[in-house]
Amino acid sequence: MKTEIRTEHKLSKYDRDSEYSYTFGIFPTFELVEKRTQYVEKILLSTKLKISADVEKLLNICRERHIEIKYDDRLIERLASKENCFVIGVFKKYTLSNHLGEKNLVLVSPSDMGNLGTIMRTMLGFGIKDLVIVKPAVDVFNPKVIRASMGAIFSLNITEYDSLGEYLSHSTNKKYPFMLKGKKILGTFTFDSDNVDLIFGNEASGLPDEMLDVGESVLIKHSSAIDSLNLPISVGIALYEFTKE
Amino acid sequence: MKTEIRTEHKLSKYDRDSEYSYTFGIFPTFELVEKRTQYVEKILLSTKLKISADVEKLLNICRERHIEIKYDDRLIERLASKENCFVIGVFKKYTLSNHLGEKNLVLVSPSDMGNLGTIMRTMLGFGIKDLVIVKPAVDVFNPKVIRASMGAIFSLNITEYDSLGEYLSHSTNKKYPFMLKGKKILGTFTFDSDNVDLIFGNEASGLPDEMLDVGESVLIKHSSAIDSLNLPISVGIALYEFTKE
Repeated sequence: MKTEIRTEHKLSKYDRDSEYSYTFGIFPTFELVEKRTQYVEKILLSTKLKISADVEKLLNICRERHIEIKYDDRLIERLASKENCFVIGVFKKYTLSNHLGEKNLVLVSPSDMGNLGTIMRTMLGFGIKDLVIVKPAVDVFNPKVIRASMGAIFSLNITEYDSLGEYLSHSTNKKYPFMLKGKKILGTFTFDSDNVDLIFGNEASGLPDEMLDVGESVLIKHSSAIDSLNLPISVGIALYEFTKE
Repeated sequence: MKTEIRTEHKLSKYDRDSEYSYTFGIFPTFELVEKRTQYVEKILLSTKLKISADVEKLLNICRERHIEIKYDDRLIERLASKENCFVIGVFKKYTLSNHLGEKNLVLVSPSDMGNLGTIMRTMLGFGIKDLVIVKPAVDVFNPKVIRASMGAIFSLNITEYDSLGEYLSHSTNKKYPFMLKGKKILGTFTFDSDNVDLIFGNEASGLPDEMLDVGESVLIKHSSAIDSLNLPISVGIALYEFTKE
């Protein structure tokens, strides 16, 4: 009993230093349980949850995998506060991967959690599963990222580097930095087929100019009526073109 | 003096029935003043605003166009509340356009304000300026839409219809409904070059099945690991492909 109380006490509203993070909602929680079973601490349910086919599916996989299921309205309220949430997955934050893939999406200093989650989901949609993040950057385990990813985060290999220099010294892949000053226009050339990094800068500042000399810089052509396309849209268009055959 | 007080009183936090709406921040306010001068009521500034080149540019165009500029921290706080905002443009909501263009983006029941604004900005980026919205839908003049559009809304012709039937009975353009059951795969065919409507459904439910029989239905191919791409990403990819070359 005492142990139980102690565990409960540890769970508080998420911050970057938390040992645990949370999935809010049925769909991302299902993805968590299916893809990262070993890190799941427990599933919290609200007494207001209505049993639907999706809920049944979630409860079944939890039972099969011996994951604790608990009704606890107060804890849900504490963790999710304003959000109208009936299911929470509690998981231990795991060590990120530490190796580059053959085809990486590289985000340098992404600063918006919703954007990062949307990009994760889009990557999965185009079958690109290796994500590299160059810090400073938002916290990949923040529940807002997880929610925006709709659980796609649990299917990706994510590697973080402390600086652009560190990333550049580790990757021998052919590099395509996407920049407003990019020299090649997307759609007018063919990407190298293996060992490729598609690199995107921060939402506001883009990539630093020195990246113009790294690999083949790419421009997604757009009208002069806007400064730039937004980051998830640019990434979506690039992945669409890259994976097209 | 009395008139002045009465005008102030009318301005309250935005809702759908408000006569006025607001731009928050320098950039969308500049777009408002430049593109929709005749509807601008006044510009509100915070005493905390630091004068930068962008602010100067905004103040100059306001002076040129005889638009009232007023410092009013209390009113800004009331209108923008939680947002950290130093510039607000106040404008009278104008009548939307009532004619289809040659190349329309048609959104059926968009439900997310951030998505709608992002789509507006992306349209402008690809030079597509005619937006058709089929209701029920979010309010195009909500400040959240305007902010996400970064002011692109003021450069678009927007037409609203009360139902899908009403839209279909008005448009004689070649129609491309984007659907998960779409028959043609984006990128494998050429769009008709004139008088084209690209049609997208609601974020959660997509387009109704009967749209499969309207024009040429299109699928953006993605992996089965996700249910669907998100709406602004799908629109971005479609506009990229449509306006290519």
